[in-house]
This record gives sequence, C-alpha cells and structure tokens, in this order.
Amino acid sequence: MVRTDRKQEYTRLHYQQRAKKRNITRRVTHTYSLMEVQKVVAPPHRSTAAKLKTRLKETFFPDDPLRQFRGQPNRTKLIRAAQYIFPILQWCPEYSFRLLKSDVVSGLTIASLAIPQGISYAKLANLPPIVGLYSSFVPPLVYAVLGSSRDLAVGPVSIASLILGSMLRQQVSPIDNPLLFLQLAFTSTFFAGLFQASLGILRLGFIIDFLSKATLIGFMAGAAIIVSLQQLKALLGITHFTKQMSVIPVLSSVFQHTNEWSWQTIVMGVCFLLFLLATRHISMKKPKLFWVSAGAPLLSVIVSTLVVFVSRADRHGISVIGKLQEGLNPPSWNMLQFHGSHLGLVAKTGLITGIVSLTEGIAVGRTFAAVKNYHVDGNKEMIAIGLMNVVGSATSCYVTTGAFSRSAVNNNAGCKTAVSNIVMSVTVMVTLLFLMPLFEYTPNVVLGAIIVTAVIGLIDLPAARHIWRIDKFDFLVMLCAFFGVVFLSVQNGLAIAVGLSLFKLLMQVTRPKTVIMGNIPGTDVYRNLHHYKEAQRIPGFLVLSIESPVNFANSNYLTERTSRWIEECEEEEAQEKHSSLRFLILEMSAVSGVDTNGVSFFKELKKSTAKKNIELVFVNPLSEVMEKLQRADEEEEFMRPEFLFLTVSEAVASLSLKGGPSLNNV
Amino acid sequence: MVRTDRKQEYTRLHYQQRAKKRNITRRVTHTYSLMEVQKVVAPPHRSTAAKLKTRLKETFFPDDPLRQFRGQPNRTKLIRAAQYIFPILQWCPEYSFRLLKSDVVSGLTIASLAIPQGISYAKLANLPPIVGLYSSFVPPLVYAVLGSSRDLAVGPVSIASLILGSMLRQQVSPIDNPLLFLQLAFTSTFFAGLFQASLGILRLGFIIDFLSKATLIGFMAGAAIIVSLQQLKALLGITHFTKQMSVIPVLSSVFQHTNEWSWQTIVMGVCFLLFLLATRHISMKKPKLFWVSAGAPLLSVIVSTLVVFVSRADRHGISVIGKLQEGLNPPSWNMLQFHGSHLGLVAKTGLITGIVSLTEGIAVGRTFAAVKNYHVDGNKEMIAIGLMNVVGSATSCYVTTGAFSRSAVNNNAGCKTAVSNIVMSVTVMVTLLFLMPLFEYTPNVVLGAIIVTAVIGLIDLPAARHIWRIDKFDFLVMLCAFFGVVFLSVQNGLAIAVGLSLFKLLMQVTRPKTVIMGNIPGTDVYRNLHHYKEAQRIPGFLVLSIESPVNFANSNYLTERTSRWIEECEEEEAQEKHSSLRFLILEMSAVSGVDTNGVSFFKELKKSTAKKNIELVFVNPLSEVMEKLQRADEEEEFMRPEFLFLTVSEAVASLSLKGGPSLNNV
Repeated sequence: MVRTDRKQEYTRLHYQQRAKKRNITRRVTHTYSLMEVQKVVAPPHRSTAAKLKTRLKETFFPDDPLRQFRGQPNRTKLIRAAQYIFPILQWCPEYSFRLLKSDVVSGLTIASLAIPQGISYAKLANLPPIVGLYSSFVPPLVYAVLGSSRDLAVGPVSIASLILGSMLRQQVSPIDNPLLFLQLAFTSTFFAGLFQASLGILRLGFIIDFLSKATLIGFMAGAAIIVSLQQLKALLGITHFTKQMSVIPVLSSVFQHTNEWSWQTIVMGVCFLLFLLATRHISMKKPKLFWVSAGAPLLSVIVSTLVVFVSRADRHGISVIGKLQEGLNPPSWNMLQFHGSHLGLVAKTGLITGIVSLTEGIAVGRTFAAVKNYHVDGNKEMIAIGLMNVVGSATSCYVTTGAFSRSAVNNNAGCKTAVSNIVMSVTVMVTLLFLMPLFEYTPNVVLGAIIVTAVIGLIDLPAARHIWRIDKFDFLVMLCAFFGVVFLSVQNGLAIAVGLSLFKLLMQVTRPKTVIMGNIPGTDVYRNLHHYKEAQRIPGFLVLSIESPVNFANSNYLTERTSRWIEECEEEEAQEKHSSLRFLILEMSAVSGVDTNGVSFFKELKKSTAKKNIELVFVNPLSEVMEKLQRADEEEEFMRPEFLFLTVSEAVASLSLKGGPSLNNV
Repeated sequence: MVRTDRKQEYTRLHYQQRAKKRNITRRVTHTYSLMEVQKVVAPPHRSTAAKLKTRLKETFFPDDPLRQFRGQPNRTKLIRAAQYIFPILQWCPEYSFRLLKSDVVSGLTIASLAIPQGISYAKLANLPPIVGLYSSFVPPLVYAVLGSSRDLAVGPVSIASLILGSMLRQQVSPIDNPLLFLQLAFTSTFFAGLFQASLGILRLGFIIDFLSKATLIGFMAGAAIIVSLQQLKALLGITHFTKQMSVIPVLSSVFQHTNEWSWQTIVMGVCFLLFLLATRHISMKKPKLFWVSAGAPLLSVIVSTLVVFVSRADRHGISVIGKLQEGLNPPSWNMLQFHGSHLGLVAKTGLITGIVSLTEGIAVGRTFAAVKNYHVDGNKEMIAIGLMNVVGSATSCYVTTGAFSRSAVNNNAGCKTAVSNIVMSVTVMVTLLFLMPLFEYTPNVVLGAIIVTAVIGLIDLPAARHIWRIDKFDFLVMLCAFFGVVFLSVQNGLAIAVGLSLFKLLMQVTRPKTVIMGNIPGTDVYRNLHHYKEAQRIPGFLVLSIESPVNFANSNYLTERTSRWIEECEEEEAQEKHSSLRFLILEMSAVSGVDTNGVSFFKELKKSTAKKNIELVFVNPLSEVMEKLQRADEEEEFMRPEFLFLTVSEAVASLSLKGGPSLNNV
C-alpha cells in the first residue's frame, strides 16, 4: 500500500513539474520580451579560509574519517576511536567458534604456502632463507592488530624481494659481504615502513595512485620474466651466474656456462615445475580445488627433501639449502645503519620497495573488500603496513606486504578475519622452533620451481588484451613498463611508465577539448555537433563548450583554438551569405576552475570578440569560476547579468530576440 | 529591410522551436509510458588511426597552419608557403613611404635606447660591452626577415643576460679567463637558439606555457631585485665585489667594502638615477611623451661622458668603459665549443636562457599583436627567434629576444613593420663603425643607473595585487618564485615555481570536483545544490556530476567520494523515512575522457550500486567515453540504452515512472 502511494506521489510530483514547466513555456512564448528566464545567481559568499578548509578536506580527507564521531556521546567516541586505531577491536568482541574454524582452515592453508614461498623469496632477495620465515612470523601478527582487511595474507612478496635484492646488489655483494647486505636490507625495510606509515599519517596515500593499472600490469609481467630468468640459476644448477638482472646478460650468462648445467638438477626441476604448473592449472580451472595448488609447494618441498635425503643427491650435483638455525626471530634493531656511505642507497631502496609493496597490498585489500562488500581505508592500511615493516625491521624481517596469490588462497579457503594471519604466524613459529632441521636437504631447484610457478600468475595477458581494446595509449604505457623492466632495470621501467602516464595527464590539461554544439531539433538540448548528426547550428550563433579547467597550461591553446573556431564559423556564415556571426556562447559547465591565466583568457576573448562585433555570453559558469571572473571584472565588461545564462537554449532564445534589433541598428 | 526580415526569421524560428517543444512536452506528459524521449546515440564510428590523427593534430597543430593552402591553385600555394616561411614577403610588396616614415622614427627611437642598454646588459652578463652592440646589429636583421611580429624590438634583454652571466660564472671566471667565458657565452647562445628553433619546428611551443603568469611576475620581480643589487657595484664604485648573486652575500659584500665607496661615483650615480627615474615617471604618466624616457639613457650617456672627459673624473675614482674596438661583428663560429668539460654547463645555460628569453619574446609579440589585432604564430616565432640566436652565435652576439620595454617604446613611437628593427640595426652599425671612440670615457655608473631604471619596471605590484585578489594559490606560486630567485638562485626560484604550478595541475586532476545536483523548480534544469539555493533534490534520486576526465590518478578518489555521497544520501533519505535511494544519475557531460582505470571505476560503481539495489544511470556521456565504456561492457551490464539519457530531467522523468512499479515489487 505504502509503495503504491509512493508511486502515485512520484507521478504526481513529476506531472506537477511538467505542468509548471508547460505554463512557463507558454508564458515565455507569449511575453518573451519580459525576459522571465531563470538567471544565473551569484554563488553564496564564502571566505578564503572556508574555501581553503574545503579544499584541504577534499584533498586529504575525501573519506571524512571523523564523520562517524559526530554527534555521538563521549563513550561511543572513545570506543570508535580505539576501533579506528585498532580494527581488531571491531570484530574481536563478536568473534565466535564458527569463525575460528574457518580461520584455522584458511590459516593453515596459507601457512603451507607461506613457508616454502618465504624461503624462496628470501633467496630471490639474496637474503638467507630463514629471513623469509622470520618475515612470515612477526609482520602478520602486527597486521592482525592494525590492519582493516580481513583477507590479506601478509608476508614477503616476489616483486618487493626482487627490487630489494637487485637494488642493494648494485653496491654490496651478498656473497662477499653477507652481514653488511643483511644490515642494509633491514635498514631499507625500516625506511620502507617509515615511508609507508608517513604516507598514511600525512594522508598522502594518493601518491600510489600514480601507478596506473596499465603501468602495474606491464611492470609485473616484466618483473615475472626477470624473476623467472633468475631462477634458471637454480633450475639448471649453474654456480657462476651474472649479477645483473636484465634479459641479455642473464641469457648470455646461462649459455656461456653450459658446462655447469647439471642434468640431475634439470630433471628434478622439470619434474617439480611440471607438477606445480599442473596443480596451478587444476586450481585455476576449479576454484573449489584451491587446496591442490595451495598444498603443492609444501608437498614438493617435502618430497624433494626426502628424495635428496634418501638418495644423498646433494653429493651428485644438486645444491641444497643447508643447515638453518632453529629459534624465533633474533632482534635486529642494532643492525640498522643510519650513517655511512650506503644511506642514500637504502633510503632509495626503501622508497621504491615501499611504494611498490604498498601498491600491491592496498590493491589486494581493496579487491577482496569489494568482493565481500566491506570498506578498506587506504590511509589506515598504509599506516598498518608501514608499522608492520618498521617492527619487522627490528625483528630480522625484510619488506612484507599483502601478497596477491596467498590472499586469493586465503579468501578461497574461507577466511573470515585477520585470525587466519595469526594462525599462519603460529604455524610458522612452530616451524621455526622445531622443524628447521628438516629443510637442510631441501634442494634449491625446488625453490626455483616454486618461484617460477608463483610469478607466472603475474603475467596477465587477458588484462593486456583488455587494455589494448579500451585505450591504446595505456597499452603503450604498459609496453614501456614491460620492456623497460625487462631490458633496462626495474626502477627505470617503472620510472618511464610513470613519466609517460604523467605526461599524458599533462597533455590532457594542456590540450583540453573544445566542442562545437548544436541544437537537437524539437528540444532545447544542445549537444556536440560532431557526435549528434541531427544537431543543428543556429545561424548567427557559435556555441562552444570548454571541457576542462582553464589555466596557465592551456590558456594559450584555448586562445588559438577559439579564434580558429570563430574564423571557421565566420567563413561558413559568409558562404551562406544571409547571416553573420553575432554571438559566441560559451558553455562553462565543465570549466571546473580558472587561475589568473584563465581569467586573462576570458578577458582577452571578450576584447577580441568585441573587435569583431561578436557578443560573448557565458552559460552556467560554476560558482568558483564565476567568483573569480567577477573579481577580475572591475569595469563590468563581461560578467554583467545580461551576458549570463543558465542554459544554452535560454541564451539563444533571449539573444535572438535581442540580436534582431541590434542587427537592425548596425 | 533585409535586417528586419532577418529579425522576423529569428523570432519565427525561435517560436517554432518553442511550439515544437510545447507539443512534445504535452505529448510526453500524456503518454509518457511510450518513452518518446530523445535518446543517447552511439557516436559515429572512427578508426584508431583517424582518432590518433585528430589527437596529434590537436596536440601539435591546434592552429591548423595548412588551412590557408587548402583548395588554392598551385601558384597561390607557392606564394603562401614563401610568405609563411618569410613573413617579410607578406608586407614588403605593399610597403609605402608613409609606413617607412613611421618606421624610421620608431627605429631611431629604439636605437637610442638599444645602444646604452646593449652596452649595459652585456656588462650584466659579464661580457665585453661591445658584444651588447654586436647583439643589437645582426639579430634584428634576421628577425626582420623571419619574424611575424611587427612591434618586437629585438636585442639583448636584462633577464637572459643575468641568467647567462650568473650560470656561466659558476664554473668560469670572466675576469681570470675572459676568452673562455666569451666562448662559453657564444656556445650557450648557439644552444639556446638551437633549442628554441627545435621547439618551434617540433611544434612543442606549449612547453613555455608551463611558465604561468604568476610564476613570471614573481620571477621577474626577483630578477629585478637581483639585477639592481648587482648594480650597487657600479653605483657605489666598489672594486672588490662578490661573485654570488643572491641578496645576502651581495649586501654583506656591499657593507664589508665601505672603504671602497667612492663619493664622486655615488654623487654622479644618484644624479643620473634621479634623472632617469624622473623621465620614466613622465613617460608613464603621459604615454605620448614616450620619447622623454626613450631618449634619456642616450642623453645620460652623452652628458656623463662629456662630464668625465672634460673633468677627467676617470682619474678621480670614477671607472669608465675604456677603449672599444671599432668595426662590425667579427665572425665567432670558430669560438663555439662542442666538447670539453663545460659542455653540460653551456647546454643547461642555453636551455634555461632559451626558455626564459623565448617566454619574454613570445609574450611581448602576443601582447602587441592583440593590441593591434593581428596574429602571431607562436611556433613560427620560436623558429625565428631560434634562428636569430643561432646566426647570432656565429657573429659575436649573445642571447637576444624581443625586449618588453623597447617593444613598448617601439609601439608608442608608431612603428608599422619590422623595418623599424632594420633602421635600429643600421643605426647600431653606424655606431659600431664610427662612434665607438666616443664611449671610451662613458662612466660605468651611468650604465648601472640605466640598468636599474630599466629593470625597475619588471616589478609589477598591481599585477601582484590582482593575482592576490583572484587566486591565492597563484599568489603563493608568485611568492615562491620571487623569494626563490632572491634568496636561492635564479634557476632554483624558477624550478620551485614551475614545480608548484605543476603540482597544482596534478592535484586538480587527482581531486576532481563532484557536484550534487538538484532541480530548479519550475524548470527541467539541474544545477549544483550548494550554489543554487532554490535547487531541490528529487527524493529517491542522487544526481552527481563528475567534472573532469576519470583516470588512474583520480579513480580511487572518485570511488571513495561517490561512496560517501551515496552513504550521506542514504542517511538523509532514511531520516525522512518515507523514501529510499533508488537511482544514481551520473551527469557525464564534463567527463572528457577515461582510461582503463576510469573504465574500471564505472564498472565497480555499477557493481557496488547494484548490491545496494541502486540503479546507475548515465546522462550525456561524450562520444569517446561512451565508446570506451561500451567496448569494456561485454556483458551489457551498464551501457544498455535504458541506462543512458540525454538530459538529467529526461532521466528523472522516465525513471520515476519506471521506479514506481519496481518499488512496488521489492
């Protein structure tokens, strides 16, 4: 019943409006000279301070985090503040046995993935394998308390490991000077965390937005290629391998050392690689069988270790991890180095690994939050990930973040809260305490196979095809990132792609669209003449729409472009002989801002059109623009009310009446 | 008669339209369920190549320089091409004695200004005074043939001289190694010209647009301060002066060497400075008396030289220019150095002086072209100025461009064509050939006074006040440029200001405006709820207007912002109890482009609104945006015709009918 009423109300409202409009139309038609058109009003006055406040709020607090506190009693405010800082308090009180069951299952699943991947990624970063396990123990605990995502599986990831390893290796050899290398890795981790947390605290999270989707897809595919090629060392059993990362030196190094290839290693590598790829394929075909690919790496490690242990293959050319120390993370804050010649390098490494790992972590968190329909606060996540890395750097961990592949498994395995991270962490702890001797005979070739299988998922061909279809320039950016990473270096590839993306943004601002508009017959709607074929230009009028803010970067272009529009229009009118251009109507709805150069543009335009006897009229200028133009318009040349209209059709209707007599007088 | 007819035609046309509209309105009102609304049509298909062509044309050829050749006979094409390359051919055939008379007067006037300023600016650049005269001889001739401005007075200018001198002095001392310094200056000039001409040929002229008005005003005021302080050396007669440029070392140097102050010099300096400032004041009050300030510098030079010669004051502490070599410009192409350790420095110096002098030259050309209502082609001007500097570097000239002050005098003196530059050049030639001995006793203090008087005009306080009134951020940029130049260095000040301006541009893109719109009662117009107080929100509808392209830099922000709009709107609706949010209408007129991230934003928005049972509707998407969204929309989720409307009012009208039944079913 209520709904039927509502429907009727809608219809009534609508009909009322229509009727009102009809009346107005009739009145306007009959007594148009009275000019009862809806006029543009001056915007409500606001002080500079108020405007600055709004601007700053929109820039740094678009999500308005204080909204939830407003109008609440103090107790609620306190609780909400505590919950805001420690999201664990949000779900902890309502935690149930049912949720725990799900979380234990998913936690154990990701642990079975995290242990072999942790060891492998640490090797990718040229760090001792055990650091990978340390990094899978402390950071997940920190994240469980501070993080707001329920699905993120925290730990070391391939790309950050690759960048950390390759950047530090530029100055310090991990073989000749392993202790210094480790110190620099922890210090870089500290800087990465500090940088991440600062971004969040200063609410500068939008900086990571400058890594566009296209850049990331190209970059990740390039990194996957680089990482996979690095694994040829382990997969072929080569002992003398190049230190460089890009394709050409790696491949030439592989083929220069064919004498070092070990057939035992190759056979083992191929077998396990095929096995892992097969399980990956199965899980991708049937997402319910996620546990097949999730358990496969651990199974491979166990089987290969057994094989090596039984056959003593380590004496026949298969290299193994070797003895690992038992026990939990030793403290490492005394290893952080804030002086000396490598400070610049570690700061830079921290910055780049920080941004890249943050991008991955936030993107993963947002993806699963969208799937499960909850909200992840980007800036809060940055603080959580940053603090996790700062704490990590003091407890022998290197850069960690939310890993995409493990988070997907976590989600598939039915995780409910961050408790799955705690379960994973406890499992890793047990491993660290009791199971380390078991890894002594684990062959490196299996770790290589695990890495290759993990990073192959980073090459996203369907996404590349999608980008090609939608935006050719984005595709170019993607290719630049890809080839830059593969042939130059990880940092250069990233820098080129980001530079190109920013260049495109600037070009959009520098060369904004101006559109010539025509009337769609039978309506008072004006649309792009080149899009709507039925749209018609009104003789004597040129209706232009400017579709961007007008500022220093484009005011010269707009001057040239509008003067060309006017000339073309005048030529056209001259050909038709029976009319001449009398009015330039600027549709300003899309001009979201002007600066001093923009204001000059409008002033100059007014002057140059006046010289040609063309009247300049503004339609629907936004409040900010109107205010600035009015302030600049001391002699009341162009912001007089008779040059301002709310819609193009009103402007045309009103001016064609006025234009007649003035044409007469000329 | 014809005009009355035309008026009637306009009125008839207008009434016809109104009548048509009324009919439609009536029909719509009565049989609205038939949905006879104007629908959004798919844009006409265009291939990627065609789109790329348009994009490139708009980027590099916004002025469409080939337009004048289209559809012309070959002979005309040839003539126009020649005229395009050599603008002199445009006015030369029609040149008359009357024009010549004007040009001779103005040419002689600017020559009287150019000779003392040329000598002074060369000293500012730490170059021999005669190089300033050489630079006022050859470049004006080149420009007269190639340039398209009729008012530009070409020669050395203060700011480019300052930058050239200060940058080169960082590595080479002009006193200890004058020959090398001169070589580097000529080579920098060559690079500046090469760079300027390349910008023009590659149609990259928009690069100078990135120096906004605010930046330039701050920068020029700072440079004027720096230049004036430098003149304290000449004005006080100090012999040991600091090599640094910024305020603090210069002032401390001035007050550390009070023992070197020469009272004769100071008296002379004060007298001539007062005289020059007084003449400047007179000419500013009465523009017709332009010749007072134009002739004053030459008069000062003559008088002061006579005074020194007669009183032999050069033996009493007043330093003079000294012997100058007679004769025209010697060739200097053999002095250009393209190797050695200073190559980086000269390239950088060339780049910066090139950009800065280009900015001045183009701005001056455009200003006077706008006054006299002719067109100056930016890219062509760059080629002209660039070639003029390349030729200059081979004929003992340093960086030249169109000087603002001299061009203003040129214009006031009634110049008609570039012949005034030729007249000036010939006058300088005569000076070089016969009058050089006269300058032997010209005191340096007068040159200092001439420079101070010239650069004081660069401090534009009214413009600064204007910027403060219009745009506070631009004012901040201006201050940064000013203080950067004054306290740091010319390059750093410029870099900071440009960086800030670009940051603002990026922030505008990163944080675009979204506006909530309401219906203006009695019309079908929808406008910003916060600007038009009478606008009303339609219950059940949220009408948002996105006012920028949607791309990687802002898609995350827009996601957060729209979700906040929706939540706020839902809360509001919930408070009113009797309705709930059913439709999200996105007004897309101002979304001038999307990239792959933008497309994902719309896809995700569709998904998230669908979860909340809100229907997403697009109003007036532009052709490019529509095309991309359609290509991305394989499952036809959101670009179906029923979700597309041409105007907000049509969307609201049509949906409120449709919304009723669906509300019923829920």
